[in-house]
Amino acid sequence: MTFSDKVRAALDNKTKPIGSLGVIEALAAQIAEIQQCLTPSADSCTLTIFAADHGMAEAGVSAFPSEVTRQMVMNFLDGGAAANVFARSVGAGVQVVDAGVSGPPITHPDLIQNRIAAGTRNAISQAAMSSDQLDDALAAGADLGRALTSDVACFGEMGIGNTSAASLVSAKVLGIEVETLIGRGTGLDDAGLSRKSTLLNQAADRTSPQLEVTVALQEYGGFEIAMMCGAMIGASEAGRIVIVDGFIATAAALCALRLHPECSKNFIYAHCSAESGHRKVMDALEVRPLLDLDLRLGEGTGALLAWPLVKAAAAMLREMASFDSAGVSGPG
Amino acid sequence: MTFSDKVRAALDNKTKPIGSLGVIEALAAQIAEIQQCLTPSADSCTLTIFAADHGMAEAGVSAFPSEVTRQMVMNFLDGGAAANVFARSVGAGVQVVDAGVSGPPITHPDLIQNRIAAGTRNAISQAAMSSDQLDDALAAGADLGRALTSDVACFGEMGIGNTSAASLVSAKVLGIEVETLIGRGTGLDDAGLSRKSTLLNQAADRTSPQLEVTVALQEYGGFEIAMMCGAMIGASEAGRIVIVDGFIATAAALCALRLHPECSKNFIYAHCSAESGHRKVMDALEVRPLLDLDLRLGEGTGALLAWPLVKAAAAMLREMASFDSAGVSGPG
Repeated sequence: MTFSDKVRAALDNKTKPIGSLGVIEALAAQIAEIQQCLTPSADSCTLTIFAADHGMAEAGVSAFPSEVTRQMVMNFLDGGAAANVFARSVGAGVQVVDAGVSGPPITHPDLIQNRIAAGTRNAISQAAMSSDQLDDALAAGADLGRALTSDVACFGEMGIGNTSAASLVSAKVLGIEVETLIGRGTGLDDAGLSRKSTLLNQAADRTSPQLEVTVALQEYGGFEIAMMCGAMIGASEAGRIVIVDGFIATAAALCALRLHPECSKNFIYAHCSAESGHRKVMDALEVRPLLDLDLRLGEGTGALLAWPLVKAAAAMLREMASFDSAGVSGPG
Repeated sequence: MTFSDKVRAALDNKTKPIGSLGVIEALAAQIAEIQQCLTPSADSCTLTIFAADHGMAEAGVSAFPSEVTRQMVMNFLDGGAAANVFARSVGAGVQVVDAGVSGPPITHPDLIQNRIAAGTRNAISQAAMSSDQLDDALAAGADLGRALTSDVACFGEMGIGNTSAASLVSAKVLGIEVETLIGRGTGLDDAGLSRKSTLLNQAADRTSPQLEVTVALQEYGGFEIAMMCGAMIGASEAGRIVIVDGFIATAAALCALRLHPECSKNFIYAHCSAESGHRKVMDALEVRPLLDLDLRLGEGTGALLAWPLVKAAAAMLREMASFDSAGVSGPG
C-alpha cells in the first residue's frame, strides 16, 4: 500500500459518506503528502508581508501615489491594516519585510530589513533591477522562507504599482499578451485603465514575447515579487504548507514553480481575485482556488481567510473518528 | 445620514481601496445592520446539531440504515464527528439535540432532550407528523434559538433520510417538481437514486403541488428540520447572526423565511452543497453562499467553515484603521 493509498483509506474510514467533505478531503490529502504523515497539522500560521516600490508607479500606472507603500508599512507595523485584523481574527502571526520601499530606510524594531534598493527602476523604459539585485532578492526570500517554523506560510505584498509588475512578469513567463492580464488594480477608472494599458504594452514591447523567469523578474519584477518567489521556494523546501494569495502572489508562485516545479505539492491557492488577470494565470497553472470572494486587496488577506479551511482539513484527518472506532454502521 | 450610510462611510474610510474586500465588506455591512452597531462582533459561535429519524428511511431512500442517526449522536457526544473536529478547529461550541431519534431515549448528560417522537411516520404514504408535533418542534426550536448567547448561531442536522424530507418540503413550499431537487444524499448509486426518485414522487403525489409551510413540514418534514426552522427564527429574534449550512438547513431556512420574512437580514448562507437540489433552493431564495467546496455532509460542517469569514468581516469593520487614523494617502 503506497502512502497515498493509506491516506485515501484513512479518509474513507472516517465517519462520513465517502467523499462528502469534497475539497476539504483533497486538501487533507495534500497536507498529509507534504508532511508525509497521517496525523498532519496546519495549526500554526505566519503571514509574511513583503513591501517594495516600483519605478513604474511614477509613470502613473496606479490610482494611488507611491508614498502609500511606506504609509502602509507603518500601518502594518501598527496593526491597523486589513491583514493585521484578519491575522488576529484567525490567530496567525504577522511579519513585515522591507524588500525595497522608496525613500530612506524605515526604522522600526519589528520591521525585517531586506532592502534591495529604494524601489525598482521604471520598467516601462528599462530593466527594473540588475541581475545582482534579483539574486539578492531571491536569496533573501529563500532564507526567510526556510527560517519559518509555523506549519503554514502565507505570503502577502504591498507595493503601489505591483499589479502592473505582476501582469508583465506573468505575461512574459507564460508567453501571452500582457493586455489579457491588465486590470484596475487598486481602482483605476476607465481613463486610468487605458493609460495603464498603453504603458504596459510599451513596457512589454521592449523585450521578447516570452522570457526566462529570471529575465522576466529582472526586467519587470518588483523586489517584493522576487523576494516572495524566493520565500515560497524556501518555505516549500522546508516542508511548509504554502498558501498562495492573490494576483501578485500568484505571479510569484508562477515564477517559483518554473524555477522549482516540485514546489507545486506545497502550494494551496487561497482565492480567485477580482483583479481580472488572476483567473487567467490560475487557469494557466491548472489550479482551483478555495475561495471566490471578489477580494482585490493583496497583503495576504485572501491567504489568511483560506487558512482556517486548511487547518480544519488537517484536523479532520488527524482527529476524526473512524467507523470502527465510533461504532457507526457503513452504507447498506 | 442613515445607519446604512454610516456603515458604508466607515467601510470606505478603511485603509484599503474602496470595495477591495468584496464579499467581506458586504458581510460586515450585514452584521453591522443585525447588531445596529459600527463596531460589531462575530467572535463567539455555537453549533447546535438537531438529530431525528425519518419513517421514510425504512422505505429505502438512503444509502445508510436508520440506526446510523443514533450512532452519530453518540459520535457527536464523544467529539469524533466532522462537526466536532471543525468546531474545535475554528473555536466554536457544540450542542446536540435529540429532536426525535428512533428507539428509546438516549441518556447522556450533554444531550439536550427535545424528543418529539421516536422518528416520524413514513411520509411516502402518510403525514410525517401531527399538527401538535409540528407545533412542539417549532416551539422547542424557537426556545433553543432565543436562549443562545453567542454572537453567531450555526445549525446542523443528522437524520438518515433527511435529504428526502428536505427535497419534499422545499419542493412543496416553492411549488416546484420534487424531481428537480432529488440528489444522491449520502451517496446513492444509480439504482438507489432511481428508487429514491420513485418513492419521493409517490410521496409528492399525495398532496397539492404547493403547500403552506406548516402543511409542508407536517406532511414531509423531519423533527430536526422543523426544530431547526424554529431555532433559526428564535435566534434571529434574539439578534444573532445565523449561518445557514447545506441543503437540509436551507430547507429549514426557506420555511423560516416564509413564516418570518424579517429573518432574512440575519441569515448568512455558508456554502453551496454538492447535493444537487441545494443550488436550486438558493437560487429561488436569490442568495449567494460564501463557500463552494463540494461538501455534502451536513452536521453544520459548512456553517462552521464559513464562520471564520464572518468573524473576520466583523473584526474588519470594528478594528481596521481609517485613512485618517493611519495617516495613509487616498487615491490621487
